[in-house]
Amino acid sequence: MKINNNFNNIQESYLFSMIAKKTNEYKKANPDKEVIRLGIGDVTKPLCKEVIKSLHDAVDDMSTAEGFHGYGPEQGYEFLKEELVKYYAGKGVCLSSDEIFISDGAKSDLGNILDLFDKDNTVLIPDPVYPVYVDTNTMAGRNIVFLNADGNNGFLPLPDESVKADIIYLCSPNNPTGAVYNFEQLKEWVDYAIKQDAIILFDAAYECFISGDDLPTSIYQIEGAKKCAIEFCSFSKTAGFTGTRCGYTVVPFDLVREDTSINKMWLRRQTTKFNGVPYIVQKGAAAVFTAEGQKEIKEAIAYYKENALIIASALDKLGISYTGGKNSPYIWLKCPNNMSSWEFFDFLLEKANVVGTPGAGFGKNGEGYFRLTAFGNRENTVKAMERIKEAIEKYL
Amino acid sequence: MKINNNFNNIQESYLFSMIAKKTNEYKKANPDKEVIRLGIGDVTKPLCKEVIKSLHDAVDDMSTAEGFHGYGPEQGYEFLKEELVKYYAGKGVCLSSDEIFISDGAKSDLGNILDLFDKDNTVLIPDPVYPVYVDTNTMAGRNIVFLNADGNNGFLPLPDESVKADIIYLCSPNNPTGAVYNFEQLKEWVDYAIKQDAIILFDAAYECFISGDDLPTSIYQIEGAKKCAIEFCSFSKTAGFTGTRCGYTVVPFDLVREDTSINKMWLRRQTTKFNGVPYIVQKGAAAVFTAEGQKEIKEAIAYYKENALIIASALDKLGISYTGGKNSPYIWLKCPNNMSSWEFFDFLLEKANVVGTPGAGFGKNGEGYFRLTAFGNRENTVKAMERIKEAIEKYL
Repeated sequence: MKINNNFNNIQESYLFSMIAKKTNEYKKANPDKEVIRLGIGDVTKPLCKEVIKSLHDAVDDMSTAEGFHGYGPEQGYEFLKEELVKYYAGKGVCLSSDEIFISDGAKSDLGNILDLFDKDNTVLIPDPVYPVYVDTNTMAGRNIVFLNADGNNGFLPLPDESVKADIIYLCSPNNPTGAVYNFEQLKEWVDYAIKQDAIILFDAAYECFISGDDLPTSIYQIEGAKKCAIEFCSFSKTAGFTGTRCGYTVVPFDLVREDTSINKMWLRRQTTKFNGVPYIVQKGAAAVFTAEGQKEIKEAIAYYKENALIIASALDKLGISYTGGKNSPYIWLKCPNNMSSWEFFDFLLEKANVVGTPGAGFGKNGEGYFRLTAFGNRENTVKAMERIKEAIEKYL
Repeated sequence: MKINNNFNNIQESYLFSMIAKKTNEYKKANPDKEVIRLGIGDVTKPLCKEVIKSLHDAVDDMSTAEGFHGYGPEQGYEFLKEELVKYYAGKGVCLSSDEIFISDGAKSDLGNILDLFDKDNTVLIPDPVYPVYVDTNTMAGRNIVFLNADGNNGFLPLPDESVKADIIYLCSPNNPTGAVYNFEQLKEWVDYAIKQDAIILFDAAYECFISGDDLPTSIYQIEGAKKCAIEFCSFSKTAGFTGTRCGYTVVPFDLVREDTSINKMWLRRQTTKFNGVPYIVQKGAAAVFTAEGQKEIKEAIAYYKENALIIASALDKLGISYTGGKNSPYIWLKCPNNMSSWEFFDFLLEKANVVGTPGAGFGKNGEGYFRLTAFGNRENTVKAMERIKEAIEKYL
């Protein structure tokens, strides 16, 4: 028996455990202080009424012989996929429902999609980055090339023709930097991918935070993308489904490599290694697309965006530079006074009683940066930014 | 870009599409005939009241800021894992809750567990078999050795010391044959696995159909198994969760290979490539373990077992030999008159208007056999067996 020794090469992430440890130690030593967390990437608002109603109805379905649903299609129920076809049509993207696969979340699919590709492919991953891209490829023993995202390119790196890549990860709006690619920039990536015969894995989990038509919310809004890109999206941030688990992955029919349909490969993978998302959950997700559902989720997103604006405005007043905050729930700021990520973490914890996420945890280019998130409640967000302002004005 | 060409080696399964095609053609040609399906492996009874109540309560939790659950632990909530610790204790198996991982079903985990093992391992799979074992390993390019299960060994093959294996699949009660290993037989497998340094992947999805204490319901009831086995189980057949999606996988702390804890590897795999089972679903699953929940699910299992008995008794009267039916929802019968699996399928469809599953679809040793399932309703099961009896007595 040989184990998969690539697991030994995965770096242990101490980021969130270290944050928890430092926070708990501080709270223990200062039990009278109220600590506010602006570090989490998890939503806090409850599911909207329309979704709740649909979930209850679906539970009732499961209580009768007539309404009961056993095994469903692994790729998702048509009733939900058809809603997504319409959702994409609203973006000007024409998809067949068989190009859409309902999943239990973008994280699962971003990892599982790698089953379709040979170990012997070069993977291009921006740094800083959502750690899952790196870890899943390391686990499979693939060669990773990092792409520098930094202040010089506004954390929106563009392709370098001299770099050979087979699998390319892009995340826009980006986690952790909040930066968003525009149409021209994404077109460069699509052209590069086609020239390289590469496939872009496009993580669109935060697309709902983009306002207006100036920025792309789907890579398929770029000409040629159906020939070179798989898109991953989720109800997690759109509709507060982080604990309810539903996402979707788009694999276009036009995506063909070595004369093989990647769509057919993914269908085969999913029918073999997955059994679909719960009927109840898919019914809940479908309710997001009713008129009332859309109204409610847009209110929730607007609420989080207002939080982001509050954070961004406070940083503007302090003269601290940042990316994100406008079409993203993340604000990625340059630590003041050239502090390191962890120095600034300690400073905010001790002097402002606010917990954020040190950028160094997202890769070497994250050093010297810091992530704040808009997913808290209003009162705490306002209070946290007032405290941060006071602390910086007083001590720095 | 190189695709994973192992996908080309996966055999297309025409089994269920062929069954659907033949059935639909027959129904179209004979619109007056009422066709009964005794072929499906899916449950038909609705979720029990206690589970429904708990699902509704959990949906209500998600509707308030206080009760809302965002990201949960990837390995499952403690409230459900603790119930499983008690469930296993009732079988005489002592587990820590950190040895239990909640999943979206046994099928997913049976495939995903392979991430932990090197490609260069020899896989031992019984034939006939649940096709997922073969397909997931073919997808990863592993060498498969088949183990003959047939009438000579009662479809319960035992280890052959001369065969080298690293990964061993066992399913008991078996799908499709319904055969169940006893303590002595499983002990032989455990001893063999330890001697070979192999790991047994034990599929216990049908354990709840075993009555009495004469047969093992968990491989950990066998001494030494914690050093060589991973157990996969599910609420699908126990509590009708085929469309609600919840299962669990046990990876003991004692399972160590190459000085590496397999439990820690699986935790790393799951935290990286999975985001947990919906809070709502886990709350529903936990309700299975209340006194009322246990009473209700036992009634449902008893109902299906009574169906199995009706099928088995009819076969007894016809003098047709079979395995299963007693501690299993599956009845695996020898086709009468040496008919092939598909000949008998056509015979039953045309002469009795009953649809079953041809054994040939489960591997070469399935040829000449046929699977009937106990998951239908009582009325149809009784009627189907009467029709089968009449048809066989009249035509064969």
